[in-house]
Amino acid sequence: MSTLESEKQVTGWAARDASGVLSPYSYTLRSTGPEDVVLKVWYCGICHTDIHQLKNHLGMSNYPMVPGHEVVGEVTEVGSDVKKFKVGDTIGVGLIVGCCRTCGPCKSNIEQYCNKRIWSYNDVYVDGKPTQGGFASSLVVDQKFAVKIPAGLAPEQAAPLLCAGVTVYSPLRHFGLKRSGLRGAILGLGGVGHMGVKIAKAMGHHVTVISSSDKKREEALDHLGADAYLVSSDVSKMQEAADSLDYILDTAPAHHPLEPYLSLLKVDGKIVLMGVISEPLQFVSPMIMLGRKTITGTFIGSMEETQEMLEFCEEKGLTSMIEIVKMDYVNEALERLEKNDVRYRFVVDVAGSNLNEKSNV
Amino acid sequence: MSTLESEKQVTGWAARDASGVLSPYSYTLRSTGPEDVVLKVWYCGICHTDIHQLKNHLGMSNYPMVPGHEVVGEVTEVGSDVKKFKVGDTIGVGLIVGCCRTCGPCKSNIEQYCNKRIWSYNDVYVDGKPTQGGFASSLVVDQKFAVKIPAGLAPEQAAPLLCAGVTVYSPLRHFGLKRSGLRGAILGLGGVGHMGVKIAKAMGHHVTVISSSDKKREEALDHLGADAYLVSSDVSKMQEAADSLDYILDTAPAHHPLEPYLSLLKVDGKIVLMGVISEPLQFVSPMIMLGRKTITGTFIGSMEETQEMLEFCEEKGLTSMIEIVKMDYVNEALERLEKNDVRYRFVVDVAGSNLNEKSNV
Repeated sequence: MSTLESEKQVTGWAARDASGVLSPYSYTLRSTGPEDVVLKVWYCGICHTDIHQLKNHLGMSNYPMVPGHEVVGEVTEVGSDVKKFKVGDTIGVGLIVGCCRTCGPCKSNIEQYCNKRIWSYNDVYVDGKPTQGGFASSLVVDQKFAVKIPAGLAPEQAAPLLCAGVTVYSPLRHFGLKRSGLRGAILGLGGVGHMGVKIAKAMGHHVTVISSSDKKREEALDHLGADAYLVSSDVSKMQEAADSLDYILDTAPAHHPLEPYLSLLKVDGKIVLMGVISEPLQFVSPMIMLGRKTITGTFIGSMEETQEMLEFCEEKGLTSMIEIVKMDYVNEALERLEKNDVRYRFVVDVAGSNLNEKSNV
Repeated sequence: MSTLESEKQVTGWAARDASGVLSPYSYTLRSTGPEDVVLKVWYCGICHTDIHQLKNHLGMSNYPMVPGHEVVGEVTEVGSDVKKFKVGDTIGVGLIVGCCRTCGPCKSNIEQYCNKRIWSYNDVYVDGKPTQGGFASSLVVDQKFAVKIPAGLAPEQAAPLLCAGVTVYSPLRHFGLKRSGLRGAILGLGGVGHMGVKIAKAMGHHVTVISSSDKKREEALDHLGADAYLVSSDVSKMQEAADSLDYILDTAPAHHPLEPYLSLLKVDGKIVLMGVISEPLQFVSPMIMLGRKTITGTFIGSMEETQEMLEFCEEKGLTSMIEIVKMDYVNEALERLEKNDVRYRFVVDVAGSNLNEKSNV
């Protein structure tokens, strides 16, 4: 056992090809470097991006691939230079585990925009080995890319915050929208969108959920606490809402027109795109010029923002809405997520799935 | 003469139909209200927008139409409540002569974004009469919508600043780009673009002119003082310039792709659209998300910004590049402007064209 221990043999669930089907897979973690932290994974959220990666939708997937980038666990080992964490701490790891540290974005602590950022999985680490994600018994990560989970947050609740949570928090903070009294809207009510409603409400905003149908009205108003619900195909209600919003967080992951939403924005209003959409989006220039409106987009958030967002959620008592599953349900969960059949985030109980035991069977 | 004097009979040059051909036209100015200022027009610039209005390109033109919204002249009469100006002052009037004064934008002194703004011509004033522009012997305007031309600016030089100048100044100021050390680009080198180069240089920026051909290279570098020149079809030079710009002022008035220019922007870079383009512009969301880039657009500037811009131009010794013509050349000038055959702005010497005398012929 001592040899295995030093080599850090771990078991994850990996896809072997673009079918995206996960099954147990054994591999070795790198030796713990001076800046590294090893964590035993407790929980890991499932994000829509995981499906794109698993099924090679972007044409850049390498296999075997252990996905998972909303990881919460307990520190089991720290490198010699680690000051930020100690053994026993509950920490989180998100979508990024490396960056160049010398470019403009890195120097400005917005390493998520570094052109040399390293993804938590389906990437190559500085040692030349593939990165593997959080659907695994353990993970090793540079301390820079881990955050402390505040004591007041349940670890399974915290997992979706590491991607979905910070994805909505970051633009609100960066664009000066983290202040009370604003009127915002969330377009699309999935994993990211539901956190958008909760975080925007906690910032003191009047929050409208915009959806393509009436199906989620009760859910949005009664369960998530939104203030208003707008069906995008209802022309008269859309016209009534013209010029009323300071911002729209656009989490819709598929092609959609922008102009109906641009018209909802006040002067200086902003639409923030969060969905990777490969088909071009369109607008005519007077729609933005005559109200100094902004079309922008953001991508997760920085490590600093992630830490701040976790503390904000603790302070505000925010929780994510999750469905906890065991690892042997992960393939069904992925199928259901693809059909938006989840309210609103699957979180895999990794520690409770006893991965190492199963791999030894 | 005393009756004519009290009725303020004036002579302008008006289009009678969508041919856009201008000829002398007599009409009456409203009585001078308490907040009104009457000015004798000295100079009036010709802007590309004038062509759209004259030729009914937007389908909203009313005739007879006296165009002109870059007006400089001398105050000849002030209303009883006018404090801002006195007889003999040199003042300027731009594209807007009225607003609601109660909406959010009006209260924030960005009246150019008021939904009830009144255009200097081809619009209806609060008294129900048509507004007429600066190609006329005199003009009456509410003091709010006039600015003082600083003593250090020649009046003919100041005329193009009232639209072209403030159009580039406003976004640089509003978006926090009025500071030295930035790298910007001007896309399109017409009346607005040439002021963009001059104003951005005066702010201490490294300025690149981007054009579709090599034709304007010498002009941009040697005469306007740009630091670099980039031909948009030169793929390798465009790639070399990737991630290098803090902003692009996009003055191109026709449809064009956005993505080649988005790729030139640094993280947090902004492309500011200034051309009214009715054909939809396109982009894919990852192009902006992965660099938190902004697509925005602005529309002229506020009265406050216009005054500030004039003082900035005086302080920096900025001049516009103009070709001064008499009113009887205005139809040729409009034809030449339509073919971009001007370097860079026509200014009509209105006072020197003796309009009133001619109309009496």
